[in-house]
Amino acid sequence: MTTAKWDIFEQVFSGPREGNPFAEVPFGATFRCGMRQVPVEGFYDGEGRYVVRFMPDWEGRWSFVTRSSCPDLDGKTGEFECVAPRAGVHGPVRVTGADTGKMHTHVPATRLKYADGKNYMCVGTTCYCWTHQPEALQQATLDTLKKGYFNKIRMCVFPKHYEFNHNDPECYPFEGGASGEGYAFDFTRFNPESWRRLEKRIGQLADMGIEADLILFHPYDRWGFSQMSHETDLYYLRYAVARLAAFRNVWWSFANEYDLMPAKSTQDWDDCFRLVQTLDPAGHLRSIHNCRGFYDHTKPWVTHCSVQHSDMERVPEWIATYQKPVVIDECCYEGNIPNYWGSISAEEMVNRMWESLCWGGYAGHGETYLDPEDVLWWAKGGTLHGKSPERILFLRKIMESLPADPVFAFERTRVMGLNFGDEEFLYYYGLRQSGYKQFDLPEGKTYRAEVIDAWNMTVTPVEGTFSGKGARVPMPSRSYCGLRLIAL
Amino acid sequence: MTTAKWDIFEQVFSGPREGNPFAEVPFGATFRCGMRQVPVEGFYDGEGRYVVRFMPDWEGRWSFVTRSSCPDLDGKTGEFECVAPRAGVHGPVRVTGADTGKMHTHVPATRLKYADGKNYMCVGTTCYCWTHQPEALQQATLDTLKKGYFNKIRMCVFPKHYEFNHNDPECYPFEGGASGEGYAFDFTRFNPESWRRLEKRIGQLADMGIEADLILFHPYDRWGFSQMSHETDLYYLRYAVARLAAFRNVWWSFANEYDLMPAKSTQDWDDCFRLVQTLDPAGHLRSIHNCRGFYDHTKPWVTHCSVQHSDMERVPEWIATYQKPVVIDECCYEGNIPNYWGSISAEEMVNRMWESLCWGGYAGHGETYLDPEDVLWWAKGGTLHGKSPERILFLRKIMESLPADPVFAFERTRVMGLNFGDEEFLYYYGLRQSGYKQFDLPEGKTYRAEVIDAWNMTVTPVEGTFSGKGARVPMPSRSYCGLRLIAL
Repeated sequence: MTTAKWDIFEQVFSGPREGNPFAEVPFGATFRCGMRQVPVEGFYDGEGRYVVRFMPDWEGRWSFVTRSSCPDLDGKTGEFECVAPRAGVHGPVRVTGADTGKMHTHVPATRLKYADGKNYMCVGTTCYCWTHQPEALQQATLDTLKKGYFNKIRMCVFPKHYEFNHNDPECYPFEGGASGEGYAFDFTRFNPESWRRLEKRIGQLADMGIEADLILFHPYDRWGFSQMSHETDLYYLRYAVARLAAFRNVWWSFANEYDLMPAKSTQDWDDCFRLVQTLDPAGHLRSIHNCRGFYDHTKPWVTHCSVQHSDMERVPEWIATYQKPVVIDECCYEGNIPNYWGSISAEEMVNRMWESLCWGGYAGHGETYLDPEDVLWWAKGGTLHGKSPERILFLRKIMESLPADPVFAFERTRVMGLNFGDEEFLYYYGLRQSGYKQFDLPEGKTYRAEVIDAWNMTVTPVEGTFSGKGARVPMPSRSYCGLRLIAL
Repeated sequence: MTTAKWDIFEQVFSGPREGNPFAEVPFGATFRCGMRQVPVEGFYDGEGRYVVRFMPDWEGRWSFVTRSSCPDLDGKTGEFECVAPRAGVHGPVRVTGADTGKMHTHVPATRLKYADGKNYMCVGTTCYCWTHQPEALQQATLDTLKKGYFNKIRMCVFPKHYEFNHNDPECYPFEGGASGEGYAFDFTRFNPESWRRLEKRIGQLADMGIEADLILFHPYDRWGFSQMSHETDLYYLRYAVARLAAFRNVWWSFANEYDLMPAKSTQDWDDCFRLVQTLDPAGHLRSIHNCRGFYDHTKPWVTHCSVQHSDMERVPEWIATYQKPVVIDECCYEGNIPNYWGSISAEEMVNRMWESLCWGGYAGHGETYLDPEDVLWWAKGGTLHGKSPERILFLRKIMESLPADPVFAFERTRVMGLNFGDEEFLYYYGLRQSGYKQFDLPEGKTYRAEVIDAWNMTVTPVEGTFSGKGARVPMPSRSYCGLRLIAL
């Protein structure tokens, strides 16, 4: 039996169905490779099925042995060979420092890369409840995502109750549903069917190279999922980790707008983070998203800052403060709904994505155009109607063509851009429309230049070469342009 | 003899020419009207001419008596009749609270009105050194200003040394000029010709209804005017007040970018303010403009906040902090020079002007297009090349058509707009492009609506009337639009 590196090894066992197996049958396994031991939680999948899942991250022979309070599930063993990753599989995204090539230089780990070292230029989108929609709409969403605009998607485990988000899903993460005038759930029993549906989508996202930034809690709720007891929250997280941690593309987003959930204290959030940090054998990324004020992202269990904010110019300040990657998951959405956060123009959406990345952070898209059927991308997925996605793809391609490790000056300057030692510079000028730009270029180097038009999606080589102090590079006096200088 | 209210009464006397009359002959007058006495400083105008100027602000019979250490200039008397103001003359601009019509409501004085009560919706521009340019260029500037885009202009008393600002003026406020390789000035003697030229321009601005926001000090200097001794600074201010305070349209701007002048301490600036506050019989507006950090605008001698900043959304915060009018004198300029502050698009210039006014502040324009002759409006005046001025005129006309006294909620909201009790609302949505807007309108009132397109300069009545909770007003899904709701 073989499993490719960063794919999922899964083993199913039969066990008791009586009582409440979700709560009453501890079950897990320890995976071993050489001297390494990795304890993994298993989960009950209904109908007497007990499952352990594991994402091997090392090529070689792995063995496992199960543990359970139930003799039928205890001490089962097995083994498999972890072989080289399949083409296009780069492993989970990790936090890493930029490599300056210099000894004794403090380099805060503020960048993201795949486990195999490949650069990950995070360009995300938001479809909160796409997996809670009818099948045809989910297929439409997958078709849209296949176009490759985005490499991350923010999505909720629970359904959402909010403007433009009022339909019920077919099933829920917990057993239960509509009951009389309202809803009734058994918060001690999960609905495996709901989780299998979610897993199917996460797997399809993985196949497309899209990270699933799973929102574990959020305030927009009519079912009670936002106000479960703290014990139930932890019980739910334990189950989620057991089922989902083996997916290489999972990120744990503890909340969308954590600060709009007054029932949970800071201590509660800390506990949630620490439980997942302890249980998740893959060490997936962990973050928490704000409405108004930030959670303290310096806490050690936070891997990166997930930010809702409109001022991209503050990214360098947040990087300096938190010394972690800054992902602008919400900078307002392209659309025309009445809400201020859902009615920015395509130009501004594209501009903010460029700004997020060029200030040294990462970027997030969303789309909220009024629709006669009330299908808004940001809520339900479907098709995109805006003008930003193709420009975001253009942005992604440029970002992915850059060297991997920008060198940041961790100070707030007026120059928005990335710099790769003396070898390459990328500047973005946003709304500015200068007729030329002037540079003091590093001694002994000569550069060629390209003008990048982020809106018209063109890259235009500039005639001539540039060197020395006060080098003037002509620019087109248009907004939404950038400049790339590449050493010859 | 008659002088119209807020015009200039001037009387010239002959006196000694020997020695240094600027420094050695104290001279002034006290003006009286009924029980009121107003002491006024006189000034030496060269060639034995001693002048007192006075702007009467009350209709009736005024008399004066001079005082001087020189017997020839002491005890001279005279009188005049102050008659009704000429048509179009509204007096100096004053700080005033908005009138809520409610008793016992604390209303910070954060608005500007003319002395006669007419509303002053400040929409300014910047031409730092237009009065230091050749005559033909100054005429061109006046021709441009006549088009009525602006009702304030920021301008320097001293010439400026900076990018795109390198030519010498024909004369200087102090006696002296080019000398050998550099310059030599006698900082004890003024050059009356230079001041007469400035006064002529201030008078022409007054005739056009434009306030002259006179920048008294600034850091961009090769002549030594930014590094005079503190005594010389005060000596200069005393002369400036004596000559200029009688012009109804003068504002005292103590500095452009005060924080880039390290030779002056906070105490120095405070002294400057207090001297002018003490000497100026007209009590003209007093402010000081920043580069990075603000001067403490809460100090009692500061009448309003003169702000350089790019984030108009902070205007409500500054109004709340300083409880004074906030004039965004510099929010970047329309143009295409390489500098970040001089290369915003016309769209963004117009947008920031709207935002400044609709967040409850006042607005300032500037233009910096590259020019083969290096004549940039912001520096030297001349003609305007941009697309913002006609749109600023459109903005001004709308602002001037509003009721005078907006009621502010002094809190940071996401709704940018002015509200006039229940009678009228003006909202501006900037980059937002909503397809409709929804309102909970005051009970018992019905409104008509107009969509304002700030870029296309149209005002389009919306069909129907609007009232009650959740009233939906259709919007055109375009950026740079606003909405006006007017009670029927």
